[in-house]
Amino acid sequence: MRTVRVNASTVYDVIIGHGLLDGAAELIRPVTTAKRFVVICDDNVADIYLDKLETSLRSGGYSCDSFVFPHGEASKSSDTLTHIYSFLASMHYTRTDAVIALGGGVTGDMAGYAAGTYLRGMDFIQIPTSLLAQVDSSVGGKTAIDIPEGKNLVGLFKQPKLVIIDTDTIGTLPKDFLVDGMGEVVKYGMIKSASLFDKLCGCDIDHIGTIIDDVIYECVSIKRDVVEADEFDRGERALLNFGHTLGHSIEQYYHYTGISHGRAVAKGMELITALAAEHGMCDDDLCTKLHECLEKYDLAIEVEPALSELGEAVLNDKKRDGDTIGIVVCDKVGHASVVKLTVDTFLSYLR
Amino acid sequence: MRTVRVNASTVYDVIIGHGLLDGAAELIRPVTTAKRFVVICDDNVADIYLDKLETSLRSGGYSCDSFVFPHGEASKSSDTLTHIYSFLASMHYTRTDAVIALGGGVTGDMAGYAAGTYLRGMDFIQIPTSLLAQVDSSVGGKTAIDIPEGKNLVGLFKQPKLVIIDTDTIGTLPKDFLVDGMGEVVKYGMIKSASLFDKLCGCDIDHIGTIIDDVIYECVSIKRDVVEADEFDRGERALLNFGHTLGHSIEQYYHYTGISHGRAVAKGMELITALAAEHGMCDDDLCTKLHECLEKYDLAIEVEPALSELGEAVLNDKKRDGDTIGIVVCDKVGHASVVKLTVDTFLSYLR
Repeated sequence: MRTVRVNASTVYDVIIGHGLLDGAAELIRPVTTAKRFVVICDDNVADIYLDKLETSLRSGGYSCDSFVFPHGEASKSSDTLTHIYSFLASMHYTRTDAVIALGGGVTGDMAGYAAGTYLRGMDFIQIPTSLLAQVDSSVGGKTAIDIPEGKNLVGLFKQPKLVIIDTDTIGTLPKDFLVDGMGEVVKYGMIKSASLFDKLCGCDIDHIGTIIDDVIYECVSIKRDVVEADEFDRGERALLNFGHTLGHSIEQYYHYTGISHGRAVAKGMELITALAAEHGMCDDDLCTKLHECLEKYDLAIEVEPALSELGEAVLNDKKRDGDTIGIVVCDKVGHASVVKLTVDTFLSYLR
Repeated sequence: MRTVRVNASTVYDVIIGHGLLDGAAELIRPVTTAKRFVVICDDNVADIYLDKLETSLRSGGYSCDSFVFPHGEASKSSDTLTHIYSFLASMHYTRTDAVIALGGGVTGDMAGYAAGTYLRGMDFIQIPTSLLAQVDSSVGGKTAIDIPEGKNLVGLFKQPKLVIIDTDTIGTLPKDFLVDGMGEVVKYGMIKSASLFDKLCGCDIDHIGTIIDDVIYECVSIKRDVVEADEFDRGERALLNFGHTLGHSIEQYYHYTGISHGRAVAKGMELITALAAEHGMCDDDLCTKLHECLEKYDLAIEVEPALSELGEAVLNDKKRDGDTIGIVVCDKVGHASVVKLTVDTFLSYLR
């Protein structure tokens, strides 16, 4: 069991280890005075882990309820949020109770947003069960919902009181979900750690299980450093968006179905690196290295839309700043920076 | 022109004076780098003030749009919020633009919530035009929306960058809205200032205009002190809820129509003070003083529901804390405290 401490506006721990779900109640006890918990999860995760968590909480002397919603990005909506609020109100939840997110990124976003806004804020605990959520979305306090006009356009910062990463959950992930998470893992290597990138190039999707605990620990540590430097996303934190501007455009093209976030981000990293090479911001060699690494994790994919079709979504990108947009570019493995372009210039690159 | 500086998690000024709307652009210029503003207001306020504000902004070199929604508490909903988000997205607003609330409490709540959540936060400026919003809701950063299960159950803290109180707006308020605001004004006297209370007792609704600038300044100063002591509502700030627990129950009984917030709070103050007297927490004399003051402002009203009918809503009150609830009680004019009761005890008082 290893711990990464995050010193954000609130201080909290990310605990990483095997079989932690069984002892969740005792991990949670020191971080909240809540005696009552609502566990929010999707139907897939509920089938596998909900009993185990509820058993742990109840045998620890806590009371708990669960709110289960249909899995999938389509649930990351104001409709689901409305149902959560209604559930909390009908069960007479109060500010001194707490919300637990058990699941992947969609669940963490929904539960975190609800915990941040119901009664203007309840305690919040993250138990991410997907690789993507473990290495990325569960740490750092970003929550969001999708609206018809775009992904993650509405949200807030809600730091959790604790993040519990039970690495046994990786073993139950369908391969597609493992691939999905690897997109963000490769991203960490590209923007911050050549040694992590090299480690990934020396492995592949079928053998990643043997080193996954270390990989998760390294990714969480990188994310912690970035969040501590820039909790509210005014500078350094933008680097985490490497591949995300075009990645989000791709997801939007597919209406958030039929392509995973990780694969969309992987394609976004490839496209932006190709553009960077074309405009002299990195060597062609970097495109090759990235492509070869992504191939090992089933992340080197083709997408339908042409580059020129990805422009409209960029106009609503959160990274846009009036007439300019910050684009994250890697100049070499392990090092990235934000390049400020006018929106017109960026759109012309896409044409 | 007088200024009250608020030292919350962000520092901002509340500027109070005559004719400030005409010079709004120059007041706003020092507090935000935004060059583009969306003014959010209801149809009533739009008819009177929107042109004036937009003219000021445009002649100050800013660009602006307006989002106008139907007046009334029914608009303080997730539906209106959805429309605001959609408007901001379709107009390609970014994080470096800003939101201005022009209007009463409903507008401040909606606009503040939207500014706090769209793209995870835009700059926010309050220009309250109702007495209620000027003395209460525009200062302190509380925002909320109503859900079918109760009033203000969903919200967040979003401190504005600036609050502009143009006291000329009081002159255009229909009398009912003036009365509405006086409910909160009397509350400030009851909980924090015997001198304010005495001043109010020496005046009445038809003459309050002659002293309203001073009254607003005193109320904002009291609110500032309370917010600085307890921005996130963990202690002292609860005193501001005097009359609000039963007041909200009364509003809910009437489905938020047909009774104003101020009158509901006034009745809530009377009911809770009567209960306090009955249980030895204050003298009967206090009930008489409060009643006489409220009569001068058309706030001493009868309501349909019996006390016993106001209990259910209390179970979803934000001030509830597991099995206990904090009730604000005045023991004398100018002094209040929070009395912790079990929910069962409080409900038995209501029977």
